[in-house]
Amino acid sequence: MKKILLSCFLFALCFQLKAETGYELWLRYQALQDQALLSSYRQQISNIYMEGSSETIKIAREELLNGLSVMLQKKIPSVSVASASTASLFISARTSSFPSGSGIKELLQQTGDEGFVIHTQKINQQNRIFIAGNTDQAILYGVFHFLRLLQTQQPISSLQIVSVPKVKLRMLNHWDNMNRTVERGYAGFSLWNWHTLPGYIDPRYIDYARANASIGINGTVLTNVNANATILTPTYLEKVKALADAFRPYGIKVYLTARFSAPIEIGRLKTADPLDPQVRQWWKDKVKEIYQYVPDFGGFVVKANSEGQPGPQDYKRSHSDGANMLAEAVAPFKGIIMWRAFVYSAEKNVDRHKQAYDEFVPLDGAFNKNVMVQVKNGAIDFMPREPFHPLFGAMPKTPLMMEFQVTQEYLGQATNLVYLGPLFKECLDSDTYSNGKGSTVAKMLDGSFNKEQTLTGITGVANIGTDVNWCGHPFAQANWYALGRLAWDHSLSAEKIADEWLRMTYSNHPTFLQTASKLMMESRDVFVQYSNPNGLHHIMGTGHHYGPAPWVSNLNRPDWNPVYYHKADSLGIGFNRTATGSNALEQYHPEARKIWENMNTCEEKNLLWFHHVPWTFKMKSGRSLWDELCFNYYTGAAKVKSMQQAWASLKPYVDQQRHEQVRMLLTVQHEEAIWWRNACLLYFQTFSKQPIPANYEKPDKTLDYYKSLRFPLAPGNGN
Amino acid sequence: MKKILLSCFLFALCFQLKAETGYELWLRYQALQDQALLSSYRQQISNIYMEGSSETIKIAREELLNGLSVMLQKKIPSVSVASASTASLFISARTSSFPSGSGIKELLQQTGDEGFVIHTQKINQQNRIFIAGNTDQAILYGVFHFLRLLQTQQPISSLQIVSVPKVKLRMLNHWDNMNRTVERGYAGFSLWNWHTLPGYIDPRYIDYARANASIGINGTVLTNVNANATILTPTYLEKVKALADAFRPYGIKVYLTARFSAPIEIGRLKTADPLDPQVRQWWKDKVKEIYQYVPDFGGFVVKANSEGQPGPQDYKRSHSDGANMLAEAVAPFKGIIMWRAFVYSAEKNVDRHKQAYDEFVPLDGAFNKNVMVQVKNGAIDFMPREPFHPLFGAMPKTPLMMEFQVTQEYLGQATNLVYLGPLFKECLDSDTYSNGKGSTVAKMLDGSFNKEQTLTGITGVANIGTDVNWCGHPFAQANWYALGRLAWDHSLSAEKIADEWLRMTYSNHPTFLQTASKLMMESRDVFVQYSNPNGLHHIMGTGHHYGPAPWVSNLNRPDWNPVYYHKADSLGIGFNRTATGSNALEQYHPEARKIWENMNTCEEKNLLWFHHVPWTFKMKSGRSLWDELCFNYYTGAAKVKSMQQAWASLKPYVDQQRHEQVRMLLTVQHEEAIWWRNACLLYFQTFSKQPIPANYEKPDKTLDYYKSLRFPLAPGNGN
Repeated sequence: MKKILLSCFLFALCFQLKAETGYELWLRYQALQDQALLSSYRQQISNIYMEGSSETIKIAREELLNGLSVMLQKKIPSVSVASASTASLFISARTSSFPSGSGIKELLQQTGDEGFVIHTQKINQQNRIFIAGNTDQAILYGVFHFLRLLQTQQPISSLQIVSVPKVKLRMLNHWDNMNRTVERGYAGFSLWNWHTLPGYIDPRYIDYARANASIGINGTVLTNVNANATILTPTYLEKVKALADAFRPYGIKVYLTARFSAPIEIGRLKTADPLDPQVRQWWKDKVKEIYQYVPDFGGFVVKANSEGQPGPQDYKRSHSDGANMLAEAVAPFKGIIMWRAFVYSAEKNVDRHKQAYDEFVPLDGAFNKNVMVQVKNGAIDFMPREPFHPLFGAMPKTPLMMEFQVTQEYLGQATNLVYLGPLFKECLDSDTYSNGKGSTVAKMLDGSFNKEQTLTGITGVANIGTDVNWCGHPFAQANWYALGRLAWDHSLSAEKIADEWLRMTYSNHPTFLQTASKLMMESRDVFVQYSNPNGLHHIMGTGHHYGPAPWVSNLNRPDWNPVYYHKADSLGIGFNRTATGSNALEQYHPEARKIWENMNTCEEKNLLWFHHVPWTFKMKSGRSLWDELCFNYYTGAAKVKSMQQAWASLKPYVDQQRHEQVRMLLTVQHEEAIWWRNACLLYFQTFSKQPIPANYEKPDKTLDYYKSLRFPLAPGNGN
Repeated sequence: MKKILLSCFLFALCFQLKAETGYELWLRYQALQDQALLSSYRQQISNIYMEGSSETIKIAREELLNGLSVMLQKKIPSVSVASASTASLFISARTSSFPSGSGIKELLQQTGDEGFVIHTQKINQQNRIFIAGNTDQAILYGVFHFLRLLQTQQPISSLQIVSVPKVKLRMLNHWDNMNRTVERGYAGFSLWNWHTLPGYIDPRYIDYARANASIGINGTVLTNVNANATILTPTYLEKVKALADAFRPYGIKVYLTARFSAPIEIGRLKTADPLDPQVRQWWKDKVKEIYQYVPDFGGFVVKANSEGQPGPQDYKRSHSDGANMLAEAVAPFKGIIMWRAFVYSAEKNVDRHKQAYDEFVPLDGAFNKNVMVQVKNGAIDFMPREPFHPLFGAMPKTPLMMEFQVTQEYLGQATNLVYLGPLFKECLDSDTYSNGKGSTVAKMLDGSFNKEQTLTGITGVANIGTDVNWCGHPFAQANWYALGRLAWDHSLSAEKIADEWLRMTYSNHPTFLQTASKLMMESRDVFVQYSNPNGLHHIMGTGHHYGPAPWVSNLNRPDWNPVYYHKADSLGIGFNRTATGSNALEQYHPEARKIWENMNTCEEKNLLWFHHVPWTFKMKSGRSLWDELCFNYYTGAAKVKSMQQAWASLKPYVDQQRHEQVRMLLTVQHEEAIWWRNACLLYFQTFSKQPIPANYEKPDKTLDYYKSLRFPLAPGNGN
């Protein structure tokens, strides 16, 4: 009878699964349909021994058993006696449990707290798979990695994996406001329902933690860098505690943003001067209080004296004065401060590109040991393409935290398919030359050149919201995934990550993978090409940052205006950052700036970033700059058409709902590409006075039309 | 091979389904596990013939085939030739397709455009099931009803169902702002992602339409009654059109809210005076434009001269002047105007209870034919318990639309389990006596006493948002369901609806149903008992309307203050609405008010609604009023404890995730019940000067503590 019920149950489920919502992310275990592989996996994983009983181990066990039963279509028995002779898959965080001579003990000496070993060994003529680590958390990471191998259909007969995260802090920054709006969020609203916390733990919090753990993310900043001091009041700390408790078994620490003026706003002090003893005491008391709620609280992220946020400079103190005051308060509890370098002043008549460097390099060495300076990947602001930030390599005594933007503020938001793996990699692999050739940004981050550096980290501004599929665009999930994977191992290629993600999220079918991977890998260049080719930047719509508006020139601050950045005139276009211009280039190591400083040899993808270039300048293609811009805008837009066609061909491999979602969004993207193309070219044409080459179809709308567009309630435009 | 793949697939799904999110709502088809019933259903539904090819029929067919295959664990074949001799389930919107002598033709004469017939008949010694209707929409309703019979495990061997909706307009009012916040919403944010519309049709829009169609809802007002004129601009009408197109095949018409001052705000006129020819023309042109986007646009809901909204009285015109102007504009397109009666003026020193009646009764007969006056169920504002609104039965020449509130603004929001079926029914079944005994509110609505009434309707302020489970609290889904079912047929009992919903949403197990149904049926009385017993009302927290704050007396308008409503003093408590007081009672028919007008015979559940009652007044229980209030507050809170125990006992019947959600929420609810109890009794005690009877545990916190609580970012409290 039981058997009948089970089979009925199974049958039922089949028909219910009509469409996939995307909620499962990449943890979408699927039954293996390749019979040879299935029987090979089944044979190699005939039973399991997993040691331990902590919450973390329980989670790992449930994940593993569930994942295996689905993928192998078979309940895999657990054996209860620890012996390599009985368990085909043997998992333990206790070195002594592994057979001597297996070499596991030795390997574990290099894996630290979070790294893991996955080894296949022959014991008594039988293949045994070991998953080993020094902590329960390491085991959880190892289990997720092992499941990933199966999800992506890799061979497991001779595994020799030793995986150790390259940086210690692998984080998400949520720009979530306490009213649940998300600054620069395009996937609905904040996951954190402060009103129903702490009593109600939305199951989604757990699913969020699980997804992060599966890619090695171990920290989350719950609140917006444009901070609200209310989060530091007892009522809200109680709620923060509830989230921290929910995330802890997944190895995820909670961080908050500290509003610098909190001592005034919630402490009723008259000042927030970081050298004022009362202020210093207030923060010490507040931090102590926080640790009573959250004993493993991670620390604070601070945006100070930036875009209107309060900070130490309000009291004529330096950034290090501010950071160190907070660092002192959290130090007894092993907390850290991530002090953001994203500062630029309206008063200074200095290229915004240079200001963070000018401000922070003199402070190198002035920060306490538990302070990191958090630096965006580029010096302007998360542009579609941006040279690496000159601060990387320029502060040898200060640990720098990389801040990527996963949410696509300037990259088509939730409607454009843009895989950010190549953007992240482009920056990480850039050579700063600060310690000679090969001093990549990644190596500046991970302490390769500074063995004393104990704080290392990569963070991403999250693209996660209440949308059922978490990220709005189905492919935006890949950017969350890529951030986590690269934070764990920046040597992974963007292709490899895309391949993993596609296999787990959609299909292992080779035809699908070939086309979809190409689509992803090209997508960021396509976006750049139809929106900001050849080093153009910051020419997007004002406020909402959506679509083109290169003509805007009326904002309060010069460096908020697109015209500040493209500087188009009758002679040419681009921002001269060479010695004859703002000389931002001087902030880079001489070897590094070589690829940019000469207009004639500058890599063309960044040409207009560093040079004001004549319209008639001859590009490598033989075209004039103007014609090259036309070529890029038109080619970029046309490529979106090809993306649509490529996606259409993948219909057989994707469930109807998710296929249709991407199909609709690519249609929108194509319209937007034409909007970028037409608006930018028609506008720049008023300077170049040259025609769009005759082989291109003429824009069907006027510049005035594009200028007249308004987006009164677009995200970022307020109410 | 194919077979192997299928079985693998099925197996896989089994293990994947660990937890239910609630996204499926009541359309959660499950495999039948009762083998006798299964074989009986299988035998009676051996194949299907379904006529037609419209989008609506396609939807009905897919729903039916999917639902049946899951529930019967078998693919049910479709036969392609229409013949009652070959199809065991025969479905058609063409009368002529049914065998003569079946009587279907005759039955269809009484079912109108939306009603359906489901009949089992013996033909050639074989049972045949017919689903018949006059339109494709009727077929869709019939199919959902038939599936419901199977979901709830009803016998289908002798069906004799003729089901016709009792009112024509069965609607949801979304109080959704265009920035996606939801006024009085507790389930996340607005489903409508205006930014990605019209290009991107979120699959959730379709799931929303499907859920509504399954319970007979045929209209949706997309925008908040506190309206934003931007929705009427071309950019947004394009987006509205996209939603209307998505909803249309499900039989759902789209309505908008009209901001009365729109001619000024988006039309650049100097006035919005409804008698101004330019204003009248502006609305005519605007309406014409809307119908170009949405040819079956339903019409407008208007909140005018109410709580700060603009309206005709700004120009010294009447509500009918305003409504008729709009009615004229939509009339050529068969649109309607739903003009809300929720008005009360700060300037008038008249019991707020009386103002809507005073304002609208004199206008009876003055409204155009296509205007409905939309009346809340009670005269104050969606209180936990409220006598029916005196307008029902008082405007015989005007069609009234019932406005219920499905979202639990005053009933524990998203954290309390409160089933509103009994609240809706209490109002619908109330006797207005306006046409003699039996003139229930429901009969006032459905035109029973006015055969010329062509507009009939019931609407509910939606409780739907972006939460994965749509409604926040898992049981809040039942209130959406109940609104739809009662709008279709107000004669259904609340028990019957709860039973249906529980069977479909959780389980058909008799033990489960017995306990869970009791839990639901008592839940609203429990909430009233621990929050607003004996007719107390409007004593909730200010702004957010969450929790108790009977002490509040400092708001700008007298009738926004809780003290205005409870009027506690040293003598007693309650609002005297008899002839010696505000005489609101005079607005009711003499027969109707009999149950309330004498303090000594007044039904005790509404005693303090109508009377200021001495603390020492002897209640039917023998207790003094004070002791009775103590009894109710303590008993109500204790009952939540019983609800927790009852729910705990249901663990075997509910998946872990949804069981845990309700468990957590009932814990929160218990804390809130104690909060209500303690805060109210401690406060009222300052007037009664009497002790809480010794058999009750003393409040463990002080009145000052409760008064000190603040909820700075609670929903409804702004940012």
